[in-house]
Amino acid sequence: MRWARFDQNGTPSYAVVEDNTVIPVLGSPFENWERTTRRLKLDEVKLLAPVIPPTFYAAGMNYAEHVREVAEKIGQKPNFPTQPDIGYRANNALIAHGETIVIPADATDQVQYEGELVVVIGRKCKHLTRDNALSAVLGYTIGNDVSERTWQKSDRTMWRAKNTDTFKPMGPWIETELKLDDLVTRIRLNGEQLIEFPTNHMIFGVVDYLVAMTSCLTLYPGDMMWMGTEGATANMKHGDRVEVEISGIGTLSNKVVREGM
Amino acid sequence: MRWARFDQNGTPSYAVVEDNTVIPVLGSPFENWERTTRRLKLDEVKLLAPVIPPTFYAAGMNYAEHVREVAEKIGQKPNFPTQPDIGYRANNALIAHGETIVIPADATDQVQYEGELVVVIGRKCKHLTRDNALSAVLGYTIGNDVSERTWQKSDRTMWRAKNTDTFKPMGPWIETELKLDDLVTRIRLNGEQLIEFPTNHMIFGVVDYLVAMTSCLTLYPGDMMWMGTEGATANMKHGDRVEVEISGIGTLSNKVVREGM
Repeated sequence: MRWARFDQNGTPSYAVVEDNTVIPVLGSPFENWERTTRRLKLDEVKLLAPVIPPTFYAAGMNYAEHVREVAEKIGQKPNFPTQPDIGYRANNALIAHGETIVIPADATDQVQYEGELVVVIGRKCKHLTRDNALSAVLGYTIGNDVSERTWQKSDRTMWRAKNTDTFKPMGPWIETELKLDDLVTRIRLNGEQLIEFPTNHMIFGVVDYLVAMTSCLTLYPGDMMWMGTEGATANMKHGDRVEVEISGIGTLSNKVVREGM
Repeated sequence: MRWARFDQNGTPSYAVVEDNTVIPVLGSPFENWERTTRRLKLDEVKLLAPVIPPTFYAAGMNYAEHVREVAEKIGQKPNFPTQPDIGYRANNALIAHGETIVIPADATDQVQYEGELVVVIGRKCKHLTRDNALSAVLGYTIGNDVSERTWQKSDRTMWRAKNTDTFKPMGPWIETELKLDDLVTRIRLNGEQLIEFPTNHMIFGVVDYLVAMTSCLTLYPGDMMWMGTEGATANMKHGDRVEVEISGIGTLSNKVVREGM
C-alpha cells in the first residue's frame, strides 16, 4: 500500500496511491482513516513530503564504503561505527519529490547527494525487541541527504552542512509492504546511473537501530529514521536533476539550482 | 504576558496566566487567538510543556565556565566555540513543570542538571538581521538539559546522554516581556542554591544565534532554542527535587526518581 501526502486546496491531506490514481482519505495513516469517493490523477496533484516527523532521526555512517569515502574527503581516518549511531536532521530542510534543491550562493561546489532508505514509524513504542521491532514501522520512503562537504568539516552537528533549507528531499510516498533484503538503491544524475547498491547492506540494520533507540527513548507515530547511504557521492550543480530510486518504492526526483544563477 | 499550555480534559490547550488565574484561549499564540470566559486556578490545572517544537535546537557550549567544567569531566581540553554552535535535542524527552525526571536503571550516578534559557520563535522567518532578530521571538521559558555524563563521552550526537525520555523538563510557561540583560538564573537542588549566574552572559547571545541560523535555514512558529548553561553541575539522585529559576519568568521544578527504586 502506498501513502502519499498532497496539497488539497492549500491543506496537506493524506491519500492512498494505486497505480496512477490518488484516493484522498479522511484521517491519516497514523490514526483512523477512511477512503473518500474522490479519485485524482497522480500527475495532477502536488505531492508533499509524505510526513513531517515529531523527531527527524538519521543514521550517521551506516555503509562501509561510504565511511571510507567520506573520511577521505574530509581528510580523516575512516571511523567505523561500533554501535548504531543516532543523529538528527531538521524539518526546515524537507522538500517533496518534484521540488527544487537550492544551493546557497555562499556554498562551494562540493554539494553532494546521498540516497537513503527512510523508515517511518507507525505507532508509539518503547523497548522494542528484535522480534517485534518491525511491527512499529508504518512503511518506507526515500530520502536524499544533500550535504555541503566543506561545511561538514566544521559543523559538529551538521546543522548547516545537511540542514540548509531544501537539503532534505523526501518521497514520493510511503510504501508499507516491502522485503528489505530485496531492495536495490540506484542514484542517477541527469539520467546517468552513478551508483547501485543493495539497500539493506547496512552496517547496522533497521532492527538494530529501532532496538537501540527504544532502549531509552519513545518513538512516536510519524517519527522517521534515515538509514544512510553507500559509496562515493558526486557534486551537483545548477541545472542538474538528481534521482534516487529504491526498487519497490519508486523514484525521488529533484532539480538543482544555485541561488543567484 | 504569560502563555501556558495545559491539559483540558485530555486535549492540550493554550491559556494566558495572570497571577494565579489561568484564562483558556481559543487558538494559540502562534496564530489567531481569543480569550474564553473561563477562569481556572493555576494550582488546579495540569501544565504541559509550553510548546512542542517543529525543530528543537540547542546551543552547544555557550558559557565560559561551563565549557571548562565539562571538558574536565569528560577528560578533554576546553574547546571554546568560535561561532554559534547549533545542535539538536528531541521532543520525546520533553516533560512539563511538575513532572518527574526518570533516571534509567542502567545510568550511572553522573546524571546532572543544566539550567537554561529557552527562546521560543513566534513567526516564520529567514535572513534575520541584528536589528530585527528579536522581533521573531514570541517569548522565553526555562529548560533543564538533563545529561548523563558518562554516556556523553561516547554519544557523538548526545542522542542518549541528553535525549533519554524525561531528560528535557521545560516550563512552566512562556513569558513574552523580558529584558534579557536583567535576568538571573538560579539552580537549586532540594532547596539548596548551587549556582547563580547572569542569564545573558553567554558566549554567543540570542541575536547571534538567530542571525547565524537564519542565514541558511527557515525558523517556524514554535521552533525553540535552548541557550546553554553556566558553571559546574552536580549529580541528581532518587528522591531529589531540582529547580531552575529565571527571574522574570518563574521556576521550573521537577522531582527525580531512579527506575526500579
